[in-house]
Amino acid sequence: MKQITMNLNTDKYIKMALEEDISSEDVSTNAIVKDNTLGEVELICKEDGIIAGLMVFKRTFELLDPSVEVFFFVKDGDQVSNKEKLGILKGPIRTLLSGERTALNFLQRMSGIATYTREVTSLLVGTQTKLLDTRKTTPNMRIFEKYAVKVGGGHNHRYNLSDGILLKDNHIAAAGSVKKAITMARDYAPFVRKIEVEVENLLMLDEALDAKADIIMLDNMSTKDMKEAVKRCKGRALTECSGNITKENINTILDIGVDFVSSGALTHSSPILDLSLKNLSSL
Amino acid sequence: MKQITMNLNTDKYIKMALEEDISSEDVSTNAIVKDNTLGEVELICKEDGIIAGLMVFKRTFELLDPSVEVFFFVKDGDQVSNKEKLGILKGPIRTLLSGERTALNFLQRMSGIATYTREVTSLLVGTQTKLLDTRKTTPNMRIFEKYAVKVGGGHNHRYNLSDGILLKDNHIAAAGSVKKAITMARDYAPFVRKIEVEVENLLMLDEALDAKADIIMLDNMSTKDMKEAVKRCKGRALTECSGNITKENINTILDIGVDFVSSGALTHSSPILDLSLKNLSSL
Amino acid sequence: MKQITMNLNTDKYIKMALEEDISSEDVSTNAIVKDNTLGEVELICKEDGIIAGLMVFKRTFELLDPSVEVFFFVKDGDQVSNKEKLGILKGPIRTLLSGERTALNFLQRMSGIATYTREVTSLLVGTQTKLLDTRKTTPNMRIFEKYAVKVGGGHNHRYNLSDGILLKDNHIAAAGSVKKAITMARDYAPFVRKIEVEVENLLMLDEALDAKADIIMLDNMSTKDMKEAVKRCKGRALTECSGNITKENINTILDIGVDFVSSGALTHSSPILDLSLKNLSSL
Amino acid sequence: MKQITMNLNTDKYIKMALEEDISSEDVSTNAIVKDNTLGEVELICKEDGIIAGLMVFKRTFELLDPSVEVFFFVKDGDQVSNKEKLGILKGPIRTLLSGERTALNFLQRMSGIATYTREVTSLLVGTQTKLLDTRKTTPNMRIFEKYAVKVGGGHNHRYNLSDGILLKDNHIAAAGSVKKAITMARDYAPFVRKIEVEVENLLMLDEALDAKADIIMLDNMSTKDMKEAVKRCKGRALTECSGNITKENINTILDIGVDFVSSGALTHSSPILDLSLKNLSSL
Amino acid sequence: MKQITMNLNTDKYIKMALEEDISSEDVSTNAIVKDNTLGEVELICKEDGIIAGLMVFKRTFELLDPSVEVFFFVKDGDQVSNKEKLGILKGPIRTLLSGERTALNFLQRMSGIATYTREVTSLLVGTQTKLLDTRKTTPNMRIFEKYAVKVGGGHNHRYNLSDGILLKDNHIAAAGSVKKAITMARDYAPFVRKIEVEVENLLMLDEALDAKADIIMLDNMSTKDMKEAVKRCKGRALTECSGNITKENINTILDIGVDFVSSGALTHSSPILDLSLKNLSSL
Amino acid sequence: MKQITMNLNTDKYIKMALEEDISSEDVSTNAIVKDNTLGEVELICKEDGIIAGLMVFKRTFELLDPSVEVFFFVKDGDQVSNKEKLGILKGPIRTLLSGERTALNFLQRMSGIATYTREVTSLLVGTQTKLLDTRKTTPNMRIFEKYAVKVGGGHNHRYNLSDGILLKDNHIAAAGSVKKAITMARDYAPFVRKIEVEVENLLMLDEALDAKADIIMLDNMSTKDMKEAVKRCKGRALTECSGNITKENINTILDIGVDFVSSGALTHSSPILDLSLKNLSSL
Repeated sequence: MKQITMNLNTDKYIKMALEEDISSEDVSTNAIVKDNTLGEVELICKEDGIIAGLMVFKRTFELLDPSVEVFFFVKDGDQVSNKEKLGILKGPIRTLLSGERTALNFLQRMSGIATYTREVTSLLVGTQTKLLDTRKTTPNMRIFEKYAVKVGGGHNHRYNLSDGILLKDNHIAAAGSVKKAITMARDYAPFVRKIEVEVENLLMLDEALDAKADIIMLDNMSTKDMKEAVKRCKGRALTECSGNITKENINTILDIGVDFVSSGALTHSSPILDLSLKNLSSL
Repeated sequence: MKQITMNLNTDKYIKMALEEDISSEDVSTNAIVKDNTLGEVELICKEDGIIAGLMVFKRTFELLDPSVEVFFFVKDGDQVSNKEKLGILKGPIRTLLSGERTALNFLQRMSGIATYTREVTSLLVGTQTKLLDTRKTTPNMRIFEKYAVKVGGGHNHRYNLSDGILLKDNHIAAAGSVKKAITMARDYAPFVRKIEVEVENLLMLDEALDAKADIIMLDNMSTKDMKEAVKRCKGRALTECSGNITKENINTILDIGVDFVSSGALTHSSPILDLSLKNLSSL
Repeated sequence: MKQITMNLNTDKYIKMALEEDISSEDVSTNAIVKDNTLGEVELICKEDGIIAGLMVFKRTFELLDPSVEVFFFVKDGDQVSNKEKLGILKGPIRTLLSGERTALNFLQRMSGIATYTREVTSLLVGTQTKLLDTRKTTPNMRIFEKYAVKVGGGHNHRYNLSDGILLKDNHIAAAGSVKKAITMARDYAPFVRKIEVEVENLLMLDEALDAKADIIMLDNMSTKDMKEAVKRCKGRALTECSGNITKENINTILDIGVDFVSSGALTHSSPILDLSLKNLSSL
Repeated sequence: MKQITMNLNTDKYIKMALEEDISSEDVSTNAIVKDNTLGEVELICKEDGIIAGLMVFKRTFELLDPSVEVFFFVKDGDQVSNKEKLGILKGPIRTLLSGERTALNFLQRMSGIATYTREVTSLLVGTQTKLLDTRKTTPNMRIFEKYAVKVGGGHNHRYNLSDGILLKDNHIAAAGSVKKAITMARDYAPFVRKIEVEVENLLMLDEALDAKADIIMLDNMSTKDMKEAVKRCKGRALTECSGNITKENINTILDIGVDFVSSGALTHSSPILDLSLKNLSSL
Repeated sequence: MKQITMNLNTDKYIKMALEEDISSEDVSTNAIVKDNTLGEVELICKEDGIIAGLMVFKRTFELLDPSVEVFFFVKDGDQVSNKEKLGILKGPIRTLLSGERTALNFLQRMSGIATYTREVTSLLVGTQTKLLDTRKTTPNMRIFEKYAVKVGGGHNHRYNLSDGILLKDNHIAAAGSVKKAITMARDYAPFVRKIEVEVENLLMLDEALDAKADIIMLDNMSTKDMKEAVKRCKGRALTECSGNITKENINTILDIGVDFVSSGALTHSSPILDLSLKNLSSL
Repeated sequence: MKQITMNLNTDKYIKMALEEDISSEDVSTNAIVKDNTLGEVELICKEDGIIAGLMVFKRTFELLDPSVEVFFFVKDGDQVSNKEKLGILKGPIRTLLSGERTALNFLQRMSGIATYTREVTSLLVGTQTKLLDTRKTTPNMRIFEKYAVKVGGGHNHRYNLSDGILLKDNHIAAAGSVKKAITMARDYAPFVRKIEVEVENLLMLDEALDAKADIIMLDNMSTKDMKEAVKRCKGRALTECSGNITKENINTILDIGVDFVSSGALTHSSPILDLSLKNLSSL
């Protein structure tokens, strides 16, 4: 999350999330706390994990009120522990209370994804295989979730349908053959695009290699065939293996030697990392 | 998800999610499939669970292209099974392929929440305790996630900070006492609001009851104290118990007799329900 | 109007109002005044009344140009008098002239509502009856108008259809009976909602009380029946009386003893309070 | 309100007004009425007046649900009477109930303005003076309010700061003289703009005429001077008289012979026309 | 481009243009440059011409990152030369690189229009004829392009369909006659509008003059007829001549004596002025 | 322009362009033409060229009024001739007149780009070199302009900064070397991205090839060096040549043998293709 990205590409989502939680005003806080009472509060970790999204957390408060100051003792990607104090927020108490939930909702989810991703990538250590995310992200959370995957040590697959080509079974059927599909894609797409194609057996694989696919996704193939496929692709195309990969079952693909393994679970089923604002005091 | 809600309150989120996935065009599909080729495809369930969000799924395709027709064999709240055919979509193949991922991202997440909620509510059968959601929802997904909780048999707590009053420790500290906080809230808030207050012991409980709180949240109290609290509140205020409730630990509160138990896990940590579009054929 | 509300919930309306008045540029001012000429101008009151909306007035200029400084000699809720100087604005003369009309349009309308509300509440002094607004607000002005009612000493009814339940004749007819309507609402609505129901006679009143309605609106009932109704509700439900209440006719309900009386006229028919920017001078 | 204007320029305001009233859902209606129950309801007039805004009223329901049908027995500008049935609405009862308040808020306000305008224009019958509106409109309601003025028989002054030139005392002071101000405006503004200038005495008037102002606004001048001014302007410039004109005081300017009289009260202080939806029945 | 216009009327276009170029992030720059590296870079001219749009150029960077500082050595309307250094930008290198293309796309186009306009107006020197733009602007660029025409020495015709009246052949045919069209327009339009009418021969011209048109556009008339038309209009109406005017053919209308000549080519076919950011260095 | 793209990605630009031209209403047309008069009008070509953007033209009218029908006798990419009738529009005359200018502004510009692109690509016939566009597009017109380039026979380079990597001199300087820049980009970017790098001499070229750049842009190199570069890249990387290429000077690069030549002039300096709506008749 760079500053430019914050202003240009994520502010609209953060602002909408605040509006979702405060459609007219924070009734409880406004009833009790005076407009200009200043205070400070701590960001506390309540589980071990990887922190991700600190700039988003900070930006949430700033969009409510630019006068809030947020100081962190950790940075994105750091290992954090239960009961660790991660940061301090200072500013109008109203802002601290009104922004708390939305800011935590972002930070908890992003940190949950980073934590899960780190667990999976640690299982890949010692192999040449890199972990990829997918487009199975929560609607309107992709920019946050793909960033969290990177923080956790994963790599990003294409961002969306517009900036990457992936020819699946339906595309190949519609085109008539693997080769035709690749040719049509090369002819149509911006020339800077790599072409990835999904194959189900070694025959399709050879056809894809002949048509000079850049990346080949191995779908539903036996371990033996996948190993053979990886061998044939060496120096000619990158290989990716896909399909309901989780931290429980990733060991099954460790010795195949594919370049990439993609996992939707990173973004669609990671539990959050529990975090909390505690110890509010007035200044 | 009623039609009115769809048009007015959810279309903007669905449209933004489509734009997130198609920032200029679906390069793969447009390269291969002609503009006006019609086809049909099936919505298939790949896990047992509760389905939720069918209207959102349908609306996603309609917002891409009003000519798509979607037929369902199930309705929200139904128990669905692995390999079950849940619906059929007919329309331009381009639309079917371009809308697939976004539509499934909504449906899988909503169904995952409904499934998890149903599991938890089934554990409450035989008690007087009802299950509530929280504001720990995914940013910009609240309207979808709170609906999914209802489909799963849960009840909704307040929607956001503007439409419900919940006075927590920080509010009480700022006000000076439980009684003062309740009085200030009653004076400030629209008179149609109920007032809920969080108490940590029986003394605070009595003060809240005296000040005529409508709902009392029991926070960090022993089982014994909670039982006593429930007794004292009978006929005077509703009771709610909170704090990291999951399907694994909900049995610990079953015999306390609180009116409500709230669980953030319903919306922040439910895994998705696996669903897929399969068997595309041209017409 | 708190700072948080300003940034999050009212800026969009203020910005749209400015765009409504300046679709490309202020031709008159830009033709005559140089870009960087600084000046000051006074905010003058031209009628006796209650001032409301000073932060909105100020924010209008700030959204045009953050360099404008606005100083007030009064605060929202103050009684102001004809010819009184209420504030001073300093900044680029172009901004002062271009923002004048939009800023005054907000301030005049909000102050008009506060003034009218104060007049009505002063007639209720000595009774236990509180004055409520309604949803009969000017489209896209509700957040401003409900705030002005509060400044004038009135109380807010529900903000909108999403955050309060009011079961009217049509709902009751559709449900089948008062009791069924209340039961259905209690079952459907978030548990933090109070339930208000409209009754037309004492039979319906008793049914509503039995079904534990929280608030009962007395509709088209004789003064005698209303007095009886208030007696029966004591300690069981709050009472509200409604129907074309204005400052001219409110005396008719003074001795009934209802908890609340609501008046649409506060927001739909209050005349503005006349205000003006005067004595522009360059610096 | 032409169809094109509806789609392009007013839909956004109507949609925002609906969102203001339904931030998540209409809880009362959704609790009681089933999704697909059809019904009809009547639009009833409760006061004598002029109706204005029927297309806006209709469009409000259509934006909630395109299946609603609205039939009118009157058209904009018609005189309507207490208890008159003005139209019938057919469609899902949920839509009829959920859109009722927002649609009436528009129609009541627009009809109130048309009614008041008609009263004032009727006082001008027999003179050569035409009635004008001003920019003293309710924020984000200008397009609706200026239309209502026309329906009531008034004429529109400039729409906003971008499409008309009006040089007031501050502009003249900044420019140095009436003549300089007019010259600067003529040089700067798009050549299709007329130039209106405000004068306070006959000297300024002569200077404005010499500088070929198109329209001259007579500000704070005695009746005698205004009559003289009108004489001097004949054939050389149009004349406008301004300043807190209401239906109570407009008689004071009837025999001056100005071409136009403008009144802010038309849009900022007209009371609404009372209207109602009645006699809902299911189909 | 005044500050007020920047904030209110052009920011949305600039922000959208940045989002068009950075839909998620600037991958190249973020891969290479650290988040907080500061640098400076020069704005260099690569062709002789007229510069226009410096504030838009500057604002583009500010909207990415308010910390960027931009200093110019020239101002809008200045003649600039190949290799001239026009300004210096200081700030985070990421911002300088990520905003470069969008900022230049605005500045190059606006300067191209100013340059072309200056060339055409220089050909009109010594005549009484002024150069006008048209509504043939690039979609969503009108506010920038009309400003550039003014910087180049041209004058602006009406801004859009809402703020000027131009009755063309189709309007006249629909109305029945020139006179009827003018009468209908005068009756319908806000009284501050001038009325322009297009005529094709001297008969229509006389009818338009009798009906007191303010401006007469001479369409497809011979030079001889145009001269006669100009004579007849003297003191009664302004004259405008139109029709595919470019710098190559404008000499054909020089001695006719029309008040205005309009040219769509200014905005629809001007080539850009070549500009570049050069000599980036870190600080 | 596929239907999906129209709804999702271009409607917002077309709607904004309509709002730019009709900020409140089309005064001229509404004054003269009745609301429900139907008519038809022809789309006539006034210059030889290539037509592009017909769906955008049609959609412009549909967004004003869905009842308009548009029939074309040509399709995008067709050669069209002066005086050729390209289509017929039927619908409310008001819509035809009010949408005319905005619809033509899109169509003329897109067709101008397609026409210019076709001229340049015709000069490349017989070579292996393909023509590319650049990011030097008109702000907020990229989706239209890149489509027009394709219609004219050109190919698209990357869409924006987010979906392609191009390492220029500044990136290489910041990284330290060509090799380091490529390594950093490969490490950071989504794995589906090709990496393009700009080199200025054969040494840099060799370094880029060693680092396995996918595409190499030859910048400011002599014809002799470019030929050598192309030879060295054969089978290892694609080559692109850039720099102020126009139809006048493209012959200078014809025999170099580069894979691609990119030209900013296609989108920033193409003159429009003249088109017109003629022969309006009522039905």
